[in-house]
Amino acid sequence: MDIRQRLASNLRRLRGQHGWSQEDYADRAGIHRTYVSDIERAARNPTITIVEKLAVPFGVSASDLIA
Amino acid sequence: MDIRQRLASNLRRLRGQHGWSQEDYADRAGIHRTYVSDIERAARNPTITIVEKLAVPFGVSASDLIA
Repeated sequence: MDIRQRLASNLRRLRGQHGWSQEDYADRAGIHRTYVSDIERAARNPTITIVEKLAVPFGVSASDLIA
Repeated sequence: MDIRQRLASNLRRLRGQHGWSQEDYADRAGIHRTYVSDIERAARNPTITIVEKLAVPFGVSASDLIA
């Protein structure tokens, strides 16, 4: 599985576990909702600092998000 | 430690363990030597697909490189 697909899958799983809409999660991560939607479809190739921001609301590491 | 510094530190450590020059390593990773030099100084904010390429020569995961 490509690294973008792994990130997408991890985000969808974690967001579902927290019961957050993309909008809820985007607000918590400080990232635009459409960007979250794109990443969840593996349509983006984010930088590592963005991945770090994506990790914060879940209380996991950036490393966990791309594992 | 910022995620870029963690990546820089992991790259320098692994490259040292393998005894590779930046040039050797850049060739193995298929990435330009100056870009490797910049990343090792935490002066770049690479995308996750670049981190995946950086991981290949060491036989580790992209996740390991940003841990």
